[in-house]
Amino acid sequence: MSSEKMVVTPWEVSGALDYDKLVKEFGVSRIDEKLHKRIVKLAGEDHPWLRRGIFFAHTNLDKVLDAIEKGEPVWLYTGRAPSGPVHLGHVVPWLFTKWLQDRLGLRLLFQVPDEEKYLFKDTTLEEAKQWTEDNLLDIVAMGFDPERTKIIVDTKHADLMYSLAVQVAKRTTASQAKALFGLKPEDNVGKYFYSCMQSVPCFLPTELEGKPTPTLIPCAIDQDVHFRLTRDVAPKLGYPKPSTILCRFLPALSSDGKMSSSGEQVIAMSDDAKAVRKKIMKYAFSGGKDTVEEHRKHGGDPDADVAYQWLTFFEPDDAKLADVRRRYERGDLLSGELKQLLVDAIVPFIEEHQRRKSDARGKTHQYLIR
Amino acid sequence: MSSEKMVVTPWEVSGALDYDKLVKEFGVSRIDEKLHKRIVKLAGEDHPWLRRGIFFAHTNLDKVLDAIEKGEPVWLYTGRAPSGPVHLGHVVPWLFTKWLQDRLGLRLLFQVPDEEKYLFKDTTLEEAKQWTEDNLLDIVAMGFDPERTKIIVDTKHADLMYSLAVQVAKRTTASQAKALFGLKPEDNVGKYFYSCMQSVPCFLPTELEGKPTPTLIPCAIDQDVHFRLTRDVAPKLGYPKPSTILCRFLPALSSDGKMSSSGEQVIAMSDDAKAVRKKIMKYAFSGGKDTVEEHRKHGGDPDADVAYQWLTFFEPDDAKLADVRRRYERGDLLSGELKQLLVDAIVPFIEEHQRRKSDARGKTHQYLIR
Repeated sequence: MSSEKMVVTPWEVSGALDYDKLVKEFGVSRIDEKLHKRIVKLAGEDHPWLRRGIFFAHTNLDKVLDAIEKGEPVWLYTGRAPSGPVHLGHVVPWLFTKWLQDRLGLRLLFQVPDEEKYLFKDTTLEEAKQWTEDNLLDIVAMGFDPERTKIIVDTKHADLMYSLAVQVAKRTTASQAKALFGLKPEDNVGKYFYSCMQSVPCFLPTELEGKPTPTLIPCAIDQDVHFRLTRDVAPKLGYPKPSTILCRFLPALSSDGKMSSSGEQVIAMSDDAKAVRKKIMKYAFSGGKDTVEEHRKHGGDPDADVAYQWLTFFEPDDAKLADVRRRYERGDLLSGELKQLLVDAIVPFIEEHQRRKSDARGKTHQYLIR
Repeated sequence: MSSEKMVVTPWEVSGALDYDKLVKEFGVSRIDEKLHKRIVKLAGEDHPWLRRGIFFAHTNLDKVLDAIEKGEPVWLYTGRAPSGPVHLGHVVPWLFTKWLQDRLGLRLLFQVPDEEKYLFKDTTLEEAKQWTEDNLLDIVAMGFDPERTKIIVDTKHADLMYSLAVQVAKRTTASQAKALFGLKPEDNVGKYFYSCMQSVPCFLPTELEGKPTPTLIPCAIDQDVHFRLTRDVAPKLGYPKPSTILCRFLPALSSDGKMSSSGEQVIAMSDDAKAVRKKIMKYAFSGGKDTVEEHRKHGGDPDADVAYQWLTFFEPDDAKLADVRRRYERGDLLSGELKQLLVDAIVPFIEEHQRRKSDARGKTHQYLIR
């Protein structure tokens, strides 16, 4: 583990992550037992990611659960800024979103802000456009209910969004944007305006339903800052505040920060079994000992082991996970064997996704808002 | 005349106007005799507003005349930010735009940035929307060639504009926007982004024609700052720089600054003959003497007289205008009589506009870009 300074913004996550500190700094709340139980009751089942603290924090979750309990309309909202292939980290909030949609019968607005990476990174608009076509297939492959899901693409559907975005913009000063997003005077004005576009899907459901309709946003915790702005602005515009349900990052294979989209260490949803195995074997930071002898004697540290951490995301069976943990700690399971268990959990999931993505061709239009 | 400090921004024009200073500060050029002659040659006739120095300055006018001479495509571009009734000052650039379209056979993109006044003034979006419906009729009433004119409304057609706007935004820093538009940290981020939307119609013609197509923008000189930004960005995006042809402001009746949209002293295109007469008689700053005796003896000062200044805009006959000037300077013409001449020139023009506006109902869709 590195002692590198933690940086968590929507555009950079690095350093050793301290989630307690993040919760405090971001002004969000932990999901407590009471909230967890309310979700389980509404959903009719528990979710491993709630039990395991992967979805661990929130804002206004109680409010949106009130609305669901009362049978009032609530929309889910999540998103994807296209700039490359979808990777395993990206699908974590999507899978949870799908679970919420399936269990709670909610409508979903899926935003594809295809200008974001252009404004903040080196992605060209042309590249963003191409990756949008590709990533849309990944989104459709998730199996969201086509009757209840609308995908909105910023540049394509800006006419549905711009009026709302300027309403957010009017109530957001340059100073606020600088402070919230760490912007500098030499940053481009698109960066100052961008977050207003990310607020729009919080308000569109109210427009579409014709009555106050809060949104519940499953996303990684770095995104909450956008919705902090939205929460500030919403009452001034007469819209309900959005609620967020926030997850940890899928750790980088090297263990520091979150899995990045760039470099060799990313496991893309388009990787084949061989590539997945090779990357995990080569890069996944091991909590095991340096030699087999030492490992057999002292055991490994699952909490420092990225392969084990990833299993907490991708192994749904609690008993199996507990067994792995126990055997690893006792030294019965070697680091390479643990990695192989991860490969065995991930590969079928990725291969199934690839089949579904292949089937998604030609179906995107069923999901686009227009 | 006041010695109040001159302020000229797209959102405020006040104080005693010094056009020499503006030309220098804005880095624009005077229209010299050579350019004037080139326009006359291309147009097949002169225009009083060129002869009289009302359209007096430009940027890159030579370049766009080169293109027209070579038969290359060139589009006109002008606009209107709706926040109230169209007044006499607004139609000055439009009338000149129509003349250029008629004489040079050019296509025209007419932008209606219905978010501008919302972001910069007190106008609500709902008000802007209502005024858009009204002002569109004024625009149609100008008689632009429907085959060659496209009106683009920012919130309605944002999907055609947003991709281009973010390209401008990426190349515009917050510092630049602050300096160009006099923005402050406490100004809203919509103000920082807005000018990017005003750049878009400079680039759309190239997209629509499928080849480099410069624009010629007839507008009042306060708007040039937007296109200074566009000129800076255009080469970086691979688009031709826009050209501007810039007019003076129709003076306020009180003589300082330009005619404002607010207050009692505005002459709207919707005013009736009685209201026009009343306002001119009551408010038009007089260059005449305090008493009839003194006036008869010393004469009036046409250059200080707003009614006379307005006649330079609305009396097309040079000989008649010169005669008025002479008689006023000699004291033959009293201030009230001069004002009546102005009323006689304006009222038929406004009444004709109202008839045309009435006929415009139901025709807006012929002009909208989509």
